[in-house]
Amino acid sequence: MARALELHPDRLFPADPTTRDIARTLYAEIAHLPIVSPHGHTDPTWFADDAPWLDATTLLLAPDHYLFRMLYSQGVDLDALAIPRRDGVPATDPRAAWRTFADHYPLFRGTPSRLWLDHVFADVFGFDIALDSSTADRYFDLIGEKLATAPFRPRALFDRFGIEFLATTEGAHDDLAAHRRIRQSGWGGRVVTTYRPDGVIDVEHEAFTPAMARFAALTGEDVYDWQGYLAAHRKRRADFRAAGATATDHGHPTAATANLSNVEAEALFAKVTRGDWTPADAELFRAQMLTEMAAMSVEDGMVMQIHPGSSRNHNAGLFASHGRDKGADIPTRTDYVHALKPLLDRFGTSTALSVILFTLDESTYARELAPLAGHYPCLKLGPSWWFHDSPEGMRRFREMTTETAGFYNTVGFNDDTRAFLSIPARHDVARRVDCGFLARLVAEHRLTDWEAAELAHELTSGLVRRAYRIDEPHFAAQAA
Amino acid sequence: MARALELHPDRLFPADPTTRDIARTLYAEIAHLPIVSPHGHTDPTWFADDAPWLDATTLLLAPDHYLFRMLYSQGVDLDALAIPRRDGVPATDPRAAWRTFADHYPLFRGTPSRLWLDHVFADVFGFDIALDSSTADRYFDLIGEKLATAPFRPRALFDRFGIEFLATTEGAHDDLAAHRRIRQSGWGGRVVTTYRPDGVIDVEHEAFTPAMARFAALTGEDVYDWQGYLAAHRKRRADFRAAGATATDHGHPTAATANLSNVEAEALFAKVTRGDWTPADAELFRAQMLTEMAAMSVEDGMVMQIHPGSSRNHNAGLFASHGRDKGADIPTRTDYVHALKPLLDRFGTSTALSVILFTLDESTYARELAPLAGHYPCLKLGPSWWFHDSPEGMRRFREMTTETAGFYNTVGFNDDTRAFLSIPARHDVARRVDCGFLARLVAEHRLTDWEAAELAHELTSGLVRRAYRIDEPHFAAQAA
Amino acid sequence: MARALELHPDRLFPADPTTRDIARTLYAEIAHLPIVSPHGHTDPTWFADDAPWLDATTLLLAPDHYLFRMLYSQGVDLDALAIPRRDGVPATDPRAAWRTFADHYPLFRGTPSRLWLDHVFADVFGFDIALDSSTADRYFDLIGEKLATAPFRPRALFDRFGIEFLATTEGAHDDLAAHRRIRQSGWGGRVVTTYRPDGVIDVEHEAFTPAMARFAALTGEDVYDWQGYLAAHRKRRADFRAAGATATDHGHPTAATANLSNVEAEALFAKVTRGDWTPADAELFRAQMLTEMAAMSVEDGMVMQIHPGSSRNHNAGLFASHGRDKGADIPTRTDYVHALKPLLDRFGTSTALSVILFTLDESTYARELAPLAGHYPCLKLGPSWWFHDSPEGMRRFREMTTETAGFYNTVGFNDDTRAFLSIPARHDVARRVDCGFLARLVAEHRLTDWEAAELAHELTSGLVRRAYRIDEPHFAAQAA
Repeated sequence: MARALELHPDRLFPADPTTRDIARTLYAEIAHLPIVSPHGHTDPTWFADDAPWLDATTLLLAPDHYLFRMLYSQGVDLDALAIPRRDGVPATDPRAAWRTFADHYPLFRGTPSRLWLDHVFADVFGFDIALDSSTADRYFDLIGEKLATAPFRPRALFDRFGIEFLATTEGAHDDLAAHRRIRQSGWGGRVVTTYRPDGVIDVEHEAFTPAMARFAALTGEDVYDWQGYLAAHRKRRADFRAAGATATDHGHPTAATANLSNVEAEALFAKVTRGDWTPADAELFRAQMLTEMAAMSVEDGMVMQIHPGSSRNHNAGLFASHGRDKGADIPTRTDYVHALKPLLDRFGTSTALSVILFTLDESTYARELAPLAGHYPCLKLGPSWWFHDSPEGMRRFREMTTETAGFYNTVGFNDDTRAFLSIPARHDVARRVDCGFLARLVAEHRLTDWEAAELAHELTSGLVRRAYRIDEPHFAAQAA
Repeated sequence: MARALELHPDRLFPADPTTRDIARTLYAEIAHLPIVSPHGHTDPTWFADDAPWLDATTLLLAPDHYLFRMLYSQGVDLDALAIPRRDGVPATDPRAAWRTFADHYPLFRGTPSRLWLDHVFADVFGFDIALDSSTADRYFDLIGEKLATAPFRPRALFDRFGIEFLATTEGAHDDLAAHRRIRQSGWGGRVVTTYRPDGVIDVEHEAFTPAMARFAALTGEDVYDWQGYLAAHRKRRADFRAAGATATDHGHPTAATANLSNVEAEALFAKVTRGDWTPADAELFRAQMLTEMAAMSVEDGMVMQIHPGSSRNHNAGLFASHGRDKGADIPTRTDYVHALKPLLDRFGTSTALSVILFTLDESTYARELAPLAGHYPCLKLGPSWWFHDSPEGMRRFREMTTETAGFYNTVGFNDDTRAFLSIPARHDVARRVDCGFLARLVAEHRLTDWEAAELAHELTSGLVRRAYRIDEPHFAAQAA
Repeated sequence: MARALELHPDRLFPADPTTRDIARTLYAEIAHLPIVSPHGHTDPTWFADDAPWLDATTLLLAPDHYLFRMLYSQGVDLDALAIPRRDGVPATDPRAAWRTFADHYPLFRGTPSRLWLDHVFADVFGFDIALDSSTADRYFDLIGEKLATAPFRPRALFDRFGIEFLATTEGAHDDLAAHRRIRQSGWGGRVVTTYRPDGVIDVEHEAFTPAMARFAALTGEDVYDWQGYLAAHRKRRADFRAAGATATDHGHPTAATANLSNVEAEALFAKVTRGDWTPADAELFRAQMLTEMAAMSVEDGMVMQIHPGSSRNHNAGLFASHGRDKGADIPTRTDYVHALKPLLDRFGTSTALSVILFTLDESTYARELAPLAGHYPCLKLGPSWWFHDSPEGMRRFREMTTETAGFYNTVGFNDDTRAFLSIPARHDVARRVDCGFLARLVAEHRLTDWEAAELAHELTSGLVRRAYRIDEPHFAAQAA
């Protein structure tokens, strides 16, 4: 017999009745605010083309490495989940993959994926029975049917979800065609891009060479010359701003920055583009480029996001068979204090620059990140990220950063997802956890109720709008 | 006047009444499940000989470095606690040592040792007054009297405690005589060994040379030849399986692994066995041997436990006077992401291999261990270990691993103790803390009650049985 | 309209009613115990001269880098806050600075600064309306008026605050004139100094050379000769003890210690005093001096405090314009296990030595510091420090150290502040958080109520008095 599926109205609020009451009151005031999603990985062609999605497996399972990672860890073959190999799509039937997923759904107990999925199932698709082996087909069928209807097309859901701003992420060598189509379509949704130049900065990336070729073609610059290379970045940043971008994003293995002289930088650039580099050269070039990007941000006002500390493609066998982004990226210890000093020595006191720091190493929250953000005018703290984008992770983020950096050096929530349907669920989790945290401060008489209400609004809306400059006329006009 | 000693039925449950009620209900269903203890350091001669223990000091105090460490930290001389020096037992009278211990019992307030001991006092010995200076003699006398009786002999307590499976740990150079006697005795208790070859792998260990000599004698192999050395490990692993072992254990200073070619490994082996090695050679050899042990586990199915990160014998003066295991082992920062990569590059996608990872560095829970275990099929997370085997430590373990690795990539509880009488107390603490954690998830509507009930059973019984393969016919038959 | 300001009697207690009741009862018993402040940075001239303070800005804002750091992080110019530049005081009017501060007071929501300030405003000055833009002038006026009256002079507040012992911190090259005047004045307050020789040990400090010159002048020793240098330290330690000191303090970048031979130490000293040193030499000399200071502590009984791990003056631009202590000190990862071994190899088993360890790296609490303090007789744990001197920081400290080190290897609270008026507020926060922690242990039946009551007294009074030896006749007599 199928089990009931219910989203409890008090979910994620602390159990203590006094605290829960306060959390409920705070949440009621901000639950229905529009969603601002300033950093994520949805596919802009969805909004450009507004074509219907195919089925539950293709939409919800196959692109989401949070999900298949867990089944893989328990011995489920990725082929059985319809995850494409490098050499082509496996022959798995989407329905069979969905059944395998449903069979293993208990693995997600206690994880945020479970919270997000149940929210999608109940709220987006209207299920009132839980997903398990016995209901797998019913789920697959009903999801497939609904996806074929108009209200489940990308733009309709965008509106239904109350999304006011959605940023995707594209490489420096992306032609932005989808974003152009969005703008030309006359559709009113504000879907913008983000400038992520890692592909033409990280010489250790397996696709560096073709990315550079496209970078050259798109800009008409001699990108193998240091000045031409920098000019190409400036051109593409302008292209991205024209596609609505207010921010750049940098996913380096470490947070290292450098501040080389122009002569040294030029020599290093020559070395790495010649292919004659050591791993230390590659790291130094990435480090120098963070500082170059900061210099350009001072010029053009784009907000810089730094997402460091992931050891990508850790599983050699899986990388060989399936390629990147297959759940095999593992966080490492990350230093910020020494790593950021070269950049900060140059721009640390600038109020024109805004850098949002993220981490996968929670031990840096209280030790490094909150003290840095609680001092430098140009630094702000991004929300708890990736593995830490979870109720416990968010709670730890607030507990370990607020006392030193305050709330106002943080930037609200990022869903950072390619799972479009889960965006409302993810923002809802963040809002609930933040309200729970504020409620505890009120219950312990560390904040007044009216301050907490102001803060709930700021954490949901005010901070993100200001941090990502989405209402600044300069950027708002470009996006229009 | 003596104070009352009472084990409160709600101990360790969260104070919030709703959450406590849920915890109570969950606990009631699993409190009396049999104890499975897959990793520990009890003495197999206890069960082989079933001789009575002597007195409170000899049984409870002198072997337990958790206890005398704390008194030592407050200036109590180890001689006063009957802790043997390298040059022989000090002349301390056991009763005098017990009185000193009782005088300092308040030092343990807020520690797990206090919880375990009070459980032993109340539940095993039936005390209803607390231990303090005024009751020290009464305790010493009554414990001594009871230990002389049949119901307090090792096998009787084994049965009374409801132990279904108990693993001890022996070195590769141990003759397993006690385990042979257990098996030959016809007693039905399942007490098995674990293969811990550190003594013949760690060339920095002060007793490496005699251990190798015994290793040679026990196997008849030329253990100073690389192939002979590996063959000797294979033979001894078979001996250990015949003594019921389902697992190996590796207590290296770091988690480093290596994947040398056979030629390189042979050359390194020659160097370290010649005595002509640097600390880096010793470390590389330990690293290579973890990978060799993994290769043998793929062959023979033994589960690998890795317990890294302890800086052993930190107190030079104490090591000189008293030797090892005197409470002077201090955890260090531990890396897993880079350290395990060589082993994982070779066996990471194998479903035949099972490696259980432990840590003394809690900063790795959310950052490294949960992401690794939430991805690699061969990796699972051992429970919170040693200094972290405590209510707060267990809570942090669940809070920092569950959202990324789930519950199903963990392996239940290890008591990891040489304090046999405390085994029920330790398992009880773990069960209560886990039920408290699950209860919070239910109270916050992150799990349903029936899921939490299933999980409580899994965390107590299912996971440990499967992770340590104790019901697999292959191993269960060997043990019979 | 102005908002009410109220210090709720239950502030900082856990919200659960059972736990809160226990916390209230515990707190009631210790709330009014005298303040013992064994480590801080108040100005001894205040107590020597007992002159009135000038105004709110000069007293509360300008010296407190916890405060202006936060405004600076949000783009407020330090000039606007009356923070002096190296080249002289900016022209800011104190009232204008105070208004700027009041305008930005919401930045401190959720921070300990907010708790401390509101306590000062309500309890010391009697405000019942909150500080904001609309009340800034009223605050500035009333504080100025009160400060001009006798009950708000330093000695009167010292008495009103119930301070029994207050340690300031002076450099080895300080003439201790203020402390001499305090003693000669006949005033009964016990204000003592602390020996902080960093200025004549850290050759990387920008003022090392003039500090050495004053060190020579004050001692009459040849401080450029190794034996003369050590003799000068001994003389000054005696001078400091005569000014009531019971402790030394060492604020090194790391916790590194060394144990060089006398010949090696002498050669190193010659090198660093010649100015012919590398950063590694400077670090090794600091490391060696920690061990030398420990040796002197074994002789003279002064308690050693080690405050490592701050990367000072991280903001190069701000250091150039404004100098030290401007909120730009950022914590770094700190190792203790390897760093302290040389010192511990020499003195680790001494019961004459007492070393109090602090950290800015919370990941070391459970991993390194609690295991070290729970073993070595000479080591104790200082309270949560600086960025971690906060309700959440204190809670984490107890949760991560108690189970391994117990309560009795800790030393009570340090306010560590230059903000004299906030001392009662800071001690009150610590007492409330400790009572809340103890209350949770009682509510979870991990401690009895009478044990918690004893511990509340110990954490407030007993431990600090013993750890800092303030009642030892040797030191108490010197202070008289």
